[in-house]
Amino acid sequence: MTITRADCVAKDARDVLASRRALFSLPKGVIYLDGNSLGVLPRHVAARVKAAVELEWGETLIKSWNKHGWFHLPQKIGARLERLVGAEPGSVIVGDTISVNLFKILTSALGQRRKRKVILSDSGNFPSDLYVAQGLTQFMADGHEVRVVAPEDVAASITADVAVVMITEVDYRTARRHEMKEITRLAHSAGALMIWDLAHSAGAVPVDLKGCGADFAVGCTYKYLNGGPGAPAFLYVRPELQNMVQPALVGWWGHARPFAFDLDFVPAPGIIRQQCGTQPILSMTALDAALDVWDGVDLRDLHRKSKALCQLFIDLIEENCARHGLKLSGSRAMDRRGSHVSFHCPEGYAVMQALIAQGIIGDFRMPDVIRFGITPLYTSFADIWDAAAVLTRILGEKLWNRPKFLARKAVT
Amino acid sequence: MTITRADCVAKDARDVLASRRALFSLPKGVIYLDGNSLGVLPRHVAARVKAAVELEWGETLIKSWNKHGWFHLPQKIGARLERLVGAEPGSVIVGDTISVNLFKILTSALGQRRKRKVILSDSGNFPSDLYVAQGLTQFMADGHEVRVVAPEDVAASITADVAVVMITEVDYRTARRHEMKEITRLAHSAGALMIWDLAHSAGAVPVDLKGCGADFAVGCTYKYLNGGPGAPAFLYVRPELQNMVQPALVGWWGHARPFAFDLDFVPAPGIIRQQCGTQPILSMTALDAALDVWDGVDLRDLHRKSKALCQLFIDLIEENCARHGLKLSGSRAMDRRGSHVSFHCPEGYAVMQALIAQGIIGDFRMPDVIRFGITPLYTSFADIWDAAAVLTRILGEKLWNRPKFLARKAVT
Repeated sequence: MTITRADCVAKDARDVLASRRALFSLPKGVIYLDGNSLGVLPRHVAARVKAAVELEWGETLIKSWNKHGWFHLPQKIGARLERLVGAEPGSVIVGDTISVNLFKILTSALGQRRKRKVILSDSGNFPSDLYVAQGLTQFMADGHEVRVVAPEDVAASITADVAVVMITEVDYRTARRHEMKEITRLAHSAGALMIWDLAHSAGAVPVDLKGCGADFAVGCTYKYLNGGPGAPAFLYVRPELQNMVQPALVGWWGHARPFAFDLDFVPAPGIIRQQCGTQPILSMTALDAALDVWDGVDLRDLHRKSKALCQLFIDLIEENCARHGLKLSGSRAMDRRGSHVSFHCPEGYAVMQALIAQGIIGDFRMPDVIRFGITPLYTSFADIWDAAAVLTRILGEKLWNRPKFLARKAVT
Repeated sequence: MTITRADCVAKDARDVLASRRALFSLPKGVIYLDGNSLGVLPRHVAARVKAAVELEWGETLIKSWNKHGWFHLPQKIGARLERLVGAEPGSVIVGDTISVNLFKILTSALGQRRKRKVILSDSGNFPSDLYVAQGLTQFMADGHEVRVVAPEDVAASITADVAVVMITEVDYRTARRHEMKEITRLAHSAGALMIWDLAHSAGAVPVDLKGCGADFAVGCTYKYLNGGPGAPAFLYVRPELQNMVQPALVGWWGHARPFAFDLDFVPAPGIIRQQCGTQPILSMTALDAALDVWDGVDLRDLHRKSKALCQLFIDLIEENCARHGLKLSGSRAMDRRGSHVSFHCPEGYAVMQALIAQGIIGDFRMPDVIRFGITPLYTSFADIWDAAAVLTRILGEKLWNRPKFLARKAVT
């Protein structure tokens, strides 16, 4: 390969984020390129969760709702996320799942556009987002429509009947990145509200919710934010909208006086009204702890490294594997991509199994996509070189076609 | 007191459930009578959560979705709960919160009764349940109504315009218990569907969802089921209804083929379609582990002990504290009560603070209720006697009125 492993080791030596790697519990014998699906465990999280179980729950019990701040974790963690997504103070709250939060903000938005019947989305959206909109419109049964267009047709499809534009910034397969500012502007020009899903953006690319004028957003904390399996999601509402909207899904945590136990719902001011039921505190605590690894990280450094790692991986694979039919998915412009790299790959499923057998963890997405998450906080340039070398060997020697090879235990 | 502490110790010696107490991590110097709000930590849960963090997440990472069965935890835990609520196999699933689950089944039910506009509930329901219904009907803005009547008026209020009757079996304040079978029968006679909230029932009193013909139910796992703070809730749909209904809130975990990433929602068969987004696995794992303490528990023994403990507490308090104005809340018939005991108590807030200062943990509910959860798996007869003795002393000596006393550290 024209870029040598020594070149990559030298890049790591100059990397301002290199020291972050030691904060993570990276499993031995593995190069983990699936942090866009489940982020790696930050080492100190285990002790924090242990304390939450044994001391906060075990010893302090019910008093921990106040004494250990359980009740305010959704706001506390939300505030910590604001910097990572360019949000205004008091505009982000954590809890529930992306799908549940999307339902809340979708109904919040539709309540503001009663006469319009179209929810516009695109076929590059994560399917669950489309399911949320479909489930809602089927229930409403009053002429509402989920209109799904190709990603490149979104801008031209924002017509005067559109109530809400609902788009995921970074495509979970191709890594294609939508122009948040421009699409938001077009939505507002047409009188529509704008919802962004940042599942593959937060912690991966710079996001400027305030700067692009987004109305609503949701996002994921178990991918690039390393919050743990199924960690609670986040939700954003633009400050000026917060007191105007009301979701269809409400509950006592969104009440103005939850402990007054009134029989009538009175929405709390601000972002709090988007809360619903009691949150899973152990998972929430893991997430809170996990965010410590972001303290002091300059997101410009993060993005610079993300692009450099992705470019390196693309260069190495295209140089060495293109002859085996691998074809890059998504844009070549690094600013129009998220932080994962996907290739169309003949026999992609078997190839990914062979990679995993060799300790290179990525994933496969139908019909033929092998996908690699590039997580700048714990992935090194040498990792990328090593992963590319293994993939090159697997394809060159057709190792994906040898059952004995696949059955081997993972080693690097 | 006419019942002596020695009598209670003798009762404990004969108690078939007494050995269960050792399974719990009871904090020292405390008699915990708030297990109806947050159940005590079962000892072995800490090790299970540690393994989930350090091994499953930390080492096995993304592969744990299959290897450690993360993806199927909602069904696995649901199946474990079926015996505890008298449900058919495959009719219970765990995830999200009570409020979110109530929203799912409420919309599932309304979809079956399109021409009826009334959701009937009562003023003894937990307010969040009413908020869920109110939030939904406000969003629908098509004439749907949440009709709230007094608990004793429910039966007479199930008229032909009622689409859904939505009731919590055990009142969170008074412990009053609704007649599940009879109300369900009346709902069905009137052509309505029946939703039960079992938040204060599951793990406290025998529930027979199948026997009473309930259509839907939700319930809580962090109270009598000891699943941990904010542990995921459960949801029940009667088998014959499962494939007929569709909630307004759906997501990829409820899709017939979640990993096909189709653009269109196709509901999974059975209870699975009531799932929505990715679940918080650490909290889910704690819950799964916590349920081990129920293995081998005969629910008839549980209920017998619950009634005996509640009766003992009522007898001791009425004998010794009635002269201070304490008045029992709810029914005197032990089969018409859940497993907590509440008293109207002048200066109730200060009295509860004094109890807590002495290590007797109960809670206060507006305007004047002191409430004590009686959890038969880890509460002993001697605990009840000791708690009653402390309350008797606090009232007799007006200790609730002495700031120095209140500031003391908890000791028994």
